[in-house]
Amino acid sequence: MNGFETLENKLLAAATPRRIAVVCGDDASTIEATVRAVERRWASVVFVGATEAVGRALGHRANQPNKSLVAAADDGEAARLAVSLIREGRADVLMKGLVETPVLLKAVLDKQQGLLPPGGVLTHVAVSVWPGYDKPLVYSDVAVIPYPTPQQRRAQIDALAAVCRSLGASEPRIALVHCAEHVSDKFPYTHDYADIVNESKDGRWPGVVIDGPLDLRTAIDPQALRVKGIHSPLQGHADALLFPDIVSGNVFYKSMTFLIPTATAGMLMGAACPVILSSRGDNAATKYDSMLLACLSQS
Amino acid sequence: MNGFETLENKLLAAATPRRIAVVCGDDASTIEATVRAVERRWASVVFVGATEAVGRALGHRANQPNKSLVAAADDGEAARLAVSLIREGRADVLMKGLVETPVLLKAVLDKQQGLLPPGGVLTHVAVSVWPGYDKPLVYSDVAVIPYPTPQQRRAQIDALAAVCRSLGASEPRIALVHCAEHVSDKFPYTHDYADIVNESKDGRWPGVVIDGPLDLRTAIDPQALRVKGIHSPLQGHADALLFPDIVSGNVFYKSMTFLIPTATAGMLMGAACPVILSSRGDNAATKYDSMLLACLSQS
Repeated sequence: MNGFETLENKLLAAATPRRIAVVCGDDASTIEATVRAVERRWASVVFVGATEAVGRALGHRANQPNKSLVAAADDGEAARLAVSLIREGRADVLMKGLVETPVLLKAVLDKQQGLLPPGGVLTHVAVSVWPGYDKPLVYSDVAVIPYPTPQQRRAQIDALAAVCRSLGASEPRIALVHCAEHVSDKFPYTHDYADIVNESKDGRWPGVVIDGPLDLRTAIDPQALRVKGIHSPLQGHADALLFPDIVSGNVFYKSMTFLIPTATAGMLMGAACPVILSSRGDNAATKYDSMLLACLSQS
Repeated sequence: MNGFETLENKLLAAATPRRIAVVCGDDASTIEATVRAVERRWASVVFVGATEAVGRALGHRANQPNKSLVAAADDGEAARLAVSLIREGRADVLMKGLVETPVLLKAVLDKQQGLLPPGGVLTHVAVSVWPGYDKPLVYSDVAVIPYPTPQQRRAQIDALAAVCRSLGASEPRIALVHCAEHVSDKFPYTHDYADIVNESKDGRWPGVVIDGPLDLRTAIDPQALRVKGIHSPLQGHADALLFPDIVSGNVFYKSMTFLIPTATAGMLMGAACPVILSSRGDNAATKYDSMLLACLSQS
């Protein structure tokens, strides 16, 4: 029980399993996570460009339908083939295995044969679940966009709202994170925050409540909000955090995963499908949770 | 027991109590913290510009030597009077009570009658102690300098090294925090990080080990370092973290104080004496720990 089970229940209630295309899924934790999903019947998996090790590993676990292997000459071709499966509607979610991230992203971002719509913004969305908070916390961007432009920031808000809804929030509350609660010339993005709040009031994101600048605690800690005497429509119960840049987002992500026993998952949003970019240090449980998150966020 | 007791023991071993000038120390938690320090005989306190409430509160706890009251017409005069006590060598540490931070800082930063030496840099240093780490973690800057210049960054390193030494580190290890481990044109400060590491190797900070860019985990988590296959002379055991800007520092500070039961204290360094800038939400324990930290860092 780590907080992601409710996502699994939603997927189990779906009529058909989600189809995951895994690029070079040779490592033990990717095999473990994907086979578990197949065994629980909420996913089918295509291994693209995996070596014979995968075949051997799968052979040890017989009676597993919904798995297949697609050969590829090299990692680049594997990435391109997996992307084409998505483009052809033969897979729903893309997942990185033992392949360098730039190789996978090159195929995703290819102008002719990739997955990013014209004008699209690829951004990272993470979700953490921990006992001290009463719901999953969605946040962006800890891994991809260094300093978001106003256009990218709005795309990040779209992605946060979509993921919050996938996780069951009927009226997502999004906090625009800063180190204080006031707009300041020293931090130009806080002016953009004020614009976003105004656009939100004008109906740009129907059914979404946005407030900021807020610091981390006034975003997610009602008591900190009270002590500071601040009024916020989020009331210290944000569903999602938008960080102003990758460094502050990354510090939060690394704090969450190091300081407390959280379950944390992540994916890229903005492409034609969610893309799971797990990293070397991730164990099977984290990969499994990221698969749950991505499959549920795939619409 | 919260990890700051060892600091108290060091102060108790000192020959004479440290003298703390408190500006407008009317609130219950400031009174509680200062009276406790006086009772334990490692501090003497001058209340500058406090109202009669302090006198009444002190009256309830008789037999307390080493306390005195200095009247002031208003908060501004109280701040100036307290600063003059430091300048005249009649107090060792300055502490904020129920006074607005800008009022106190105005007196501290006054060019003629203040506490900042010419060319000095005022920066915030925080210290957190928690069971998951084997020593106090010192970090900067979560509250004062928005985007440090190279000169300010080097002053921050001076301050971090000094505080680490006050806390007992014989060879302080300082991590230059980023979201990754490589220098990148997208993040100009990472070039300055490389310069700092080179200056450090050239002997600018004798007895201090500096490495970066490192992300939060490769700075303080040996296992993350191993998984990423990175070599760092800090070996995942940093004594101190330098954050690239106030937002990432503040996110870490707020994460520490919200996510886990840490003891966290803070102060300003760079002036003629440490300045304790507690905030409204701080309880007596936090103020007490900040007094310990500041008095130990006062040289």
